[in-house]
Amino acid sequence: MEEPPPDVALGDRSEEEVLAAVLPAFAAVPGVLVGPGDDAAVLDLSPGPVVATTDSMVRGQDWVDAWSTARDVAAKCLTQNLADLAAMGATPTSLLVSIAADPATPLAWLVDFAVELGSRAAARRVGVVGGDLSSASVGTIVVAVTALGRLDGRDPVCRGGAAAGDVVAVRGSLGRSAAGLLLLQRDGAGPDPAYPDLVAAHLRPEAPVVDGVVAADAGATAMIDVSDGLLRDADRVGRASGVLVDLERARLEPFVAALRGAVGDEAALECVLAGGEEHSLLAMFPGPDDVPTGWAVLGTVREGRGVAVDGVVTAPRGWDHFAG
Amino acid sequence: MEEPPPDVALGDRSEEEVLAAVLPAFAAVPGVLVGPGDDAAVLDLSPGPVVATTDSMVRGQDWVDAWSTARDVAAKCLTQNLADLAAMGATPTSLLVSIAADPATPLAWLVDFAVELGSRAAARRVGVVGGDLSSASVGTIVVAVTALGRLDGRDPVCRGGAAAGDVVAVRGSLGRSAAGLLLLQRDGAGPDPAYPDLVAAHLRPEAPVVDGVVAADAGATAMIDVSDGLLRDADRVGRASGVLVDLERARLEPFVAALRGAVGDEAALECVLAGGEEHSLLAMFPGPDDVPTGWAVLGTVREGRGVAVDGVVTAPRGWDHFAG
Repeated sequence: MEEPPPDVALGDRSEEEVLAAVLPAFAAVPGVLVGPGDDAAVLDLSPGPVVATTDSMVRGQDWVDAWSTARDVAAKCLTQNLADLAAMGATPTSLLVSIAADPATPLAWLVDFAVELGSRAAARRVGVVGGDLSSASVGTIVVAVTALGRLDGRDPVCRGGAAAGDVVAVRGSLGRSAAGLLLLQRDGAGPDPAYPDLVAAHLRPEAPVVDGVVAADAGATAMIDVSDGLLRDADRVGRASGVLVDLERARLEPFVAALRGAVGDEAALECVLAGGEEHSLLAMFPGPDDVPTGWAVLGTVREGRGVAVDGVVTAPRGWDHFAG
Repeated sequence: MEEPPPDVALGDRSEEEVLAAVLPAFAAVPGVLVGPGDDAAVLDLSPGPVVATTDSMVRGQDWVDAWSTARDVAAKCLTQNLADLAAMGATPTSLLVSIAADPATPLAWLVDFAVELGSRAAARRVGVVGGDLSSASVGTIVVAVTALGRLDGRDPVCRGGAAAGDVVAVRGSLGRSAAGLLLLQRDGAGPDPAYPDLVAAHLRPEAPVVDGVVAADAGATAMIDVSDGLLRDADRVGRASGVLVDLERARLEPFVAALRGAVGDEAALECVLAGGEEHSLLAMFPGPDDVPTGWAVLGTVREGRGVAVDGVVTAPRGWDHFAG
């Protein structure tokens, strides 16, 4: 990839020149019959159904330039979308990327974004197969990613399949992204050198993508990725399945303990319970023996509706895009 | 659908409440195994490969509220995406819609958008299967649509398959959307009552979606939709195929004549040659007998590269998102 000079903006180049600078970032992967550059991409996703999801990031809302580079934004946007596919038990195959940006945006920002997205996608054999570039008003950058995946003959793992008696388990961390955000907010100016891993967990969260398939194969009855907070996402499963997802406080303790030094006692618990953008996988399994290696048991599914901690039904809290 | 009060903004409701107001707009269609509301949609698009495209609209760039209602925006965004699928010879099946909007946006705007998109999609048996809603800065609305389709065993019709000797033909109108835009710009305040059909062609362009499959079945060697101007899009086919797409001025005359009364002599020709957002289908066929009924022959494919009018190679002009 040729790095564009830092003083070149999108508006200094034609759309074609911008695309020519970006498209080399996207490696060819198997199954792409027609890639970027035609009216539409043509994808061999056989056998079986196609799984599709879309998720966006908005500058000033989902990231601020003082904290996040273009590469951070690419990494986070990819994780958000792949986690949604993983939570269905799907294997990601393809991405389409739509970007609306202020023409004053440096071309280097867009190229950095494309390079990071392309290399992370290629490492998972996911193709960037299509996209769209639009100009937008001063200061605006909106990145909308659509991700496609395949099930390879598996049944999708939906939110509504949990039953009383199931075991609740998580694969991945809890509260680390939210703790990283707290540290960034506390310091204002930038990453806290004392806890760079937590800051990184916020800026570039990683999802345990392949574990979605593992969970599906292990017989998971329901699954969701923790994008808006453990309580809120567990509540979604509870309501969709018509059951109560009962979390044990003691089972959450190791996750809370890991954050206590960085953000303090109260905030650590709140990060674990309500922290968003973690993108770990929360799944329900028929019995304890079905929980795959590497997953942490968090509780039990009971008769009822919603989410509880130690049997006490709790109002879900976590991220909402519009509610104040 | 319940119409929300006009003074309710997105920010006055939770994300869940906003979704509850919008989701009823989207009818169930066959082939959707899991629809909106889970982590991802699951789609039966068998047999054969999946065709995917994405296209966006940005408030203030792609539409202004003085001219376009939410329903207009929905109609145009749908047409843009379906035309791209049609230009591959595909049949549209599914949409994913990502919206980033200022929380001050009236909820009624979003519901109107959803109702129009949903009803137009359902009329074509296309499902709205997923989406994403984000808050954005003051005044911003960005709508990004991803459309999926299937080929039903057909080979995709790409841009690179045209060969010397092919006949060039168009299905649909030329220059009408651009003429409508000129009328809106000339009048400033609103639709010109003398030519409401041209204004409508700009605000709510229609694509001859099913004719893409007709062209594929008739043996089209290359196809594109006229989204950025006849010259520019013909040039794209010419360069992708390594041929010269030679248009006959006389064949364009009926399209020019139809606009002359509304916008004048010179502008009428320019609208036909360079007017964007028309979303007619431009295709190449092996011989005159292969051109399906309803398509208008525009010229011939010759040895060379790019686009020409009456044999004179022409610099493509038309819409570019970034170049001044």
